[in-house]
Amino acid sequence: MSSQFGQAFRISTFGESHGGAVGVIVDGCPPRIALSEADIQRDLDRRRPGQSEIVTPRDEADACKILSGVFEGKTTGTPIAVVVFNKDARPEAYREMETAFRPSHADYTYQAKYGIRNWQGGGRASARETIGRVAAAAIAKQVLAQLAPGIEIVAYVKSIHELAATVDVDAVKFEEVEANIVRCPDAAMAEKMISFIKEVRAAGDSVGGTIECVVRGCPAGWGEPVFDKLEADLAKGVLSLPATKGFEIGSGFAGTRLRGSEHNDAFEMREGRVRTRTNLSGGIQGGISNGEPIFFRVAFKPTATIFKEQDTVTTSGEDTKLQARGRHDPCVLPRAVPMVEAMTALVLCDHALRHRAQCGRE
Amino acid sequence: MSSQFGQAFRISTFGESHGGAVGVIVDGCPPRIALSEADIQRDLDRRRPGQSEIVTPRDEADACKILSGVFEGKTTGTPIAVVVFNKDARPEAYREMETAFRPSHADYTYQAKYGIRNWQGGGRASARETIGRVAAAAIAKQVLAQLAPGIEIVAYVKSIHELAATVDVDAVKFEEVEANIVRCPDAAMAEKMISFIKEVRAAGDSVGGTIECVVRGCPAGWGEPVFDKLEADLAKGVLSLPATKGFEIGSGFAGTRLRGSEHNDAFEMREGRVRTRTNLSGGIQGGISNGEPIFFRVAFKPTATIFKEQDTVTTSGEDTKLQARGRHDPCVLPRAVPMVEAMTALVLCDHALRHRAQCGRE
Amino acid sequence: MSSQFGQAFRISTFGESHGGAVGVIVDGCPPRIALSEADIQRDLDRRRPGQSEIVTPRDEADACKILSGVFEGKTTGTPIAVVVFNKDARPEAYREMETAFRPSHADYTYQAKYGIRNWQGGGRASARETIGRVAAAAIAKQVLAQLAPGIEIVAYVKSIHELAATVDVDAVKFEEVEANIVRCPDAAMAEKMISFIKEVRAAGDSVGGTIECVVRGCPAGWGEPVFDKLEADLAKGVLSLPATKGFEIGSGFAGTRLRGSEHNDAFEMREGRVRTRTNLSGGIQGGISNGEPIFFRVAFKPTATIFKEQDTVTTSGEDTKLQARGRHDPCVLPRAVPMVEAMTALVLCDHALRHRAQCGRE
Amino acid sequence: MSSQFGQAFRISTFGESHGGAVGVIVDGCPPRIALSEADIQRDLDRRRPGQSEIVTPRDEADACKILSGVFEGKTTGTPIAVVVFNKDARPEAYREMETAFRPSHADYTYQAKYGIRNWQGGGRASARETIGRVAAAAIAKQVLAQLAPGIEIVAYVKSIHELAATVDVDAVKFEEVEANIVRCPDAAMAEKMISFIKEVRAAGDSVGGTIECVVRGCPAGWGEPVFDKLEADLAKGVLSLPATKGFEIGSGFAGTRLRGSEHNDAFEMREGRVRTRTNLSGGIQGGISNGEPIFFRVAFKPTATIFKEQDTVTTSGEDTKLQARGRHDPCVLPRAVPMVEAMTALVLCDHALRHRAQCGRE
Repeated sequence: MSSQFGQAFRISTFGESHGGAVGVIVDGCPPRIALSEADIQRDLDRRRPGQSEIVTPRDEADACKILSGVFEGKTTGTPIAVVVFNKDARPEAYREMETAFRPSHADYTYQAKYGIRNWQGGGRASARETIGRVAAAAIAKQVLAQLAPGIEIVAYVKSIHELAATVDVDAVKFEEVEANIVRCPDAAMAEKMISFIKEVRAAGDSVGGTIECVVRGCPAGWGEPVFDKLEADLAKGVLSLPATKGFEIGSGFAGTRLRGSEHNDAFEMREGRVRTRTNLSGGIQGGISNGEPIFFRVAFKPTATIFKEQDTVTTSGEDTKLQARGRHDPCVLPRAVPMVEAMTALVLCDHALRHRAQCGRE
Repeated sequence: MSSQFGQAFRISTFGESHGGAVGVIVDGCPPRIALSEADIQRDLDRRRPGQSEIVTPRDEADACKILSGVFEGKTTGTPIAVVVFNKDARPEAYREMETAFRPSHADYTYQAKYGIRNWQGGGRASARETIGRVAAAAIAKQVLAQLAPGIEIVAYVKSIHELAATVDVDAVKFEEVEANIVRCPDAAMAEKMISFIKEVRAAGDSVGGTIECVVRGCPAGWGEPVFDKLEADLAKGVLSLPATKGFEIGSGFAGTRLRGSEHNDAFEMREGRVRTRTNLSGGIQGGISNGEPIFFRVAFKPTATIFKEQDTVTTSGEDTKLQARGRHDPCVLPRAVPMVEAMTALVLCDHALRHRAQCGRE
Repeated sequence: MSSQFGQAFRISTFGESHGGAVGVIVDGCPPRIALSEADIQRDLDRRRPGQSEIVTPRDEADACKILSGVFEGKTTGTPIAVVVFNKDARPEAYREMETAFRPSHADYTYQAKYGIRNWQGGGRASARETIGRVAAAAIAKQVLAQLAPGIEIVAYVKSIHELAATVDVDAVKFEEVEANIVRCPDAAMAEKMISFIKEVRAAGDSVGGTIECVVRGCPAGWGEPVFDKLEADLAKGVLSLPATKGFEIGSGFAGTRLRGSEHNDAFEMREGRVRTRTNLSGGIQGGISNGEPIFFRVAFKPTATIFKEQDTVTTSGEDTKLQARGRHDPCVLPRAVPMVEAMTALVLCDHALRHRAQCGRE
Repeated sequence: MSSQFGQAFRISTFGESHGGAVGVIVDGCPPRIALSEADIQRDLDRRRPGQSEIVTPRDEADACKILSGVFEGKTTGTPIAVVVFNKDARPEAYREMETAFRPSHADYTYQAKYGIRNWQGGGRASARETIGRVAAAAIAKQVLAQLAPGIEIVAYVKSIHELAATVDVDAVKFEEVEANIVRCPDAAMAEKMISFIKEVRAAGDSVGGTIECVVRGCPAGWGEPVFDKLEADLAKGVLSLPATKGFEIGSGFAGTRLRGSEHNDAFEMREGRVRTRTNLSGGIQGGISNGEPIFFRVAFKPTATIFKEQDTVTTSGEDTKLQARGRHDPCVLPRAVPMVEAMTALVLCDHALRHRAQCGRE
């Protein structure tokens, strides 16, 4: 199904940029987990437009409402529906896109697939679609905190264009990430990134970069052999986010330039348990977590919607020019950080419950 | 489920390296598709061990048998079971691995997850597991040939260690790939790669690289918005293959260093239909194919099993040394080419049928 | 998943009796199907409480709102979310059920499973849960009308307690069903049923019965062999409705008292196509529709919540007495008619799309 | 998918009556469960043809082979493939069915759906298809024995035509069922049934009946609200068996003729836990087991293939006569007893694992 994710902790999202609302249903959530709208709002606020001067100015509070599945502050085990109503919709700003396809956006492919599309604000292809994911993931995080106390998921901007941060995956903290509006824990580089994004926006252009995510405290044994390898599900999860172009885990593409004797992570006993001396595997071997930090990087392309005039074609098949209006992010990465975290939490929570189903242990 | 893939064209694989057999069931295959064991054997032969001097010498004919779902040379619409019996099993060569975990292999994580593992030849974590995938994909290719006549899937070795080939994704041909044992269509570079792999093997070491895959002739409209984006499913598919560390599509990680005005693929009318002038998108926009060639790259790490002595721990938690015996590939890439093709065919066939379900067109 | 139904046309429902709202997301709906809130409201009105003097007096307009997936009066192929906000909630009327389990209701089993339950109005075990099903089925009916023009689904009350109607499955019309408040097309028997239900209610008691459903105009070829037989999915669908105890198709239990020579439906050519002379099969053979009318019966038990004092136990494990208050149906059947229709439409629509996926035809 | 069943304990079956083999893959099985081919063979022997004078004389040992997923006598957590090769195939005995459709069999509907069918022995619509189910269920029983020690599943013939047995669901034992060839624990009635079946066979005819199944020792809390109610999944499971026409649980259709005050099962504390005084609910309330015995009945029609001449049509659309040859059961019920048990075990095992996933308890 197009809009469902997960097997044991399954989410179903809905909603368009300018439709009535966006939201999610979470099915399979364990009962008796503490949950409030505030738990969800915290992450939605990190994702919302208008949060800083380097993101889209669309003005949405993105206030969530839990419609079901929670009773007296606790989950009941039944489906949890969360909804956010769209407020600041301005369909008229998208009128050009009714008849012209934005280059490298989803306008043309939706039309080719469905023979119809909601052209207002990108419809389902808008980044607003991720609200349901982030809301569901806030619930997943509550579950994970109970199943694997001490587990931490930290994502951050690793690079913007050529500007690359230096970050220690074993030590980076959430607070360092949230300390600046670009969400890069390397404070000096963050400044440069912010200036650069402003510059690019002033030029009516856009820019991409990479996000790195690390999971510390994940128990050994999560994930499955063969198709549902933990890294395969993480890759699918993050590459289902808008604007992504690549995923690599541990040594990644650079690892292809090492020999086995350099790349293998020797095992050793440390602090009474099996550990690896290095971690080029990125915390996963054979599709299953090994207890070391899991870390991976995701490539985000420059935002497709720019304010420069571009060549394109009309829905009736004629060459034309398009210059976008509307409100758009010059760089999606600052707001994509909570989205990457969200997909990571969803994958881990799903696999934690699946592991419990089959193996009877957390 | 650990060993199932696809929604409408769903495969279920089974089998260990040294168990009785490996194989697959394909459920949901359209009826009246011509299919013989020879159609499947062709691809199994490209995947099998012992096929050349740069792969594992394990001697397996990998002869397949169709047990069901085909009648008088045609699929009947019922499940197609394909089985390959293991012949050249030598469990004694793996005796050390009964008690010691191979670094960067799945030995430890299987034990951590299940509390038991078939240590003979890596069990389910062996590359033999991919026989079922390749067999199923041979069926998928027959279906695709009927649903989208002219569709072509070509995968090839793009790099081995630092040795990178020059290949034109718009023109590369299957025959050029199969012209040499390393499966690199750049003949000059292929020679260097072969020599290098031999050298590495002589040193008891292993090496990785990248595989590129291109799909030409894919209709616009395949894939789904949100979670089951075509590139997300391709990423999951290929990253579920053993030894993979990364995936990138179109511009990939390099695309993060471009601006939107450089990265966007302008649309234009060409030969009577909507085309893009460039193809940094890699043939997919918003999760849905746009009719341009789909191409992506996959990173493979150096094989974990090497013949040098390595530090590791025993199943009872003591530090030890391990030197592997057995028969292993010094470099998985030549045999991984048909595996990448296979996962690509499976994803496309599944999405083709899903598209037909929802939209009623091929 | 507890609250999902269907594979290709998949619905996810949510909501409790006294929570904020109830509703559904439909994923996989074909694009360009005409759809308005009025199309959905029509069936919700047939399901809603307070519609007549023989059902619960709870006062809910059950006005639905489409939140996504429809643009300019047509489905877009993206998820359709429909929501109904709860209005006339009176949690105080359920206060006794906070601590005492209603006999033959779901109070105890929810507590045993989840260790928590929303006791207000039965929570998720309330008949309000079926709003999402009926709303989704209204969409399914629009799809079916396009895929199989002329297809008709007619459900009706066949018996209440000992009062059994005489109905011709080949001729019964929707208008005859809707002509009276008990939804029995045998007008004379309907009068008796209505009187009987009033009598039972006056006594503080409740009563059950059977609903029969017929599908005319279903094409041959829908359904699948083995597990997802059309009748198996219909059985699952209707037996997932609250208060159901049995399902039989065609000859049903009575068929077990016939010999093969009496039971077999001879084939014959009629009006240029393959027909059966009799229809004890009930329109399905080997799990697949044969083009004849599909008809089946569903047993509904008497409503569990009655106004007589009953023996039960408390949540803390003590014997006690319980006398229900609140607003309850003395007989669920009149309102269950659109629910049975709904599950039938959902099963058929799902199988129609699955058939199209695999076989490429409607 | 047509040939898959279960979510957490998922089986995929394959195979035709006269194809090379029939079998199953079980995915999601917990690790470290003792399992041998003998554990599976025991149930296959109860299902196999030729086992007594009242079933089909086809001579098949149905000897199973485990191809994967078991190591040193224990499950490994990876897919378990079990295969049975067909031996006594006699396609020539089905030659008439190549061109004529057997009344009330699946010949016509398979042709209508797929445009092709394996007419030898009924292909996938043969009762041989159930071998995979029975094999998988033998594994499920091993799992259940560990998750819920003491759980018992006992199915038996309750009636043949008008001959109905008297059986106490709370006390009936497996040994009583297996004590005679018709598998009816009422010994006196069993004799009559056996004579009757012989008589019917001598007349070239066939006969149906009902099977009852009871589960004792099922913990409270298995099953899910809404769509995947335990009774809905049981109904789907058994109605996916060949020749079934109806399902009823607890009071069933007879319950529709009671009032709520007669039908409700009062709760009481007994032996320190919540029990019901009566059990008209049949052990399930709101879709979730309540700890009381679960019992239900299944209607089986008379076998479609009879030796009397019947009217039918040819594949080219002409009226004709058909008189079957081949080897057929005059009554499927004796062999259907292990099939009903099998579907029950599969449903319970799946829900046990799903319950553990969500609620963390067995």
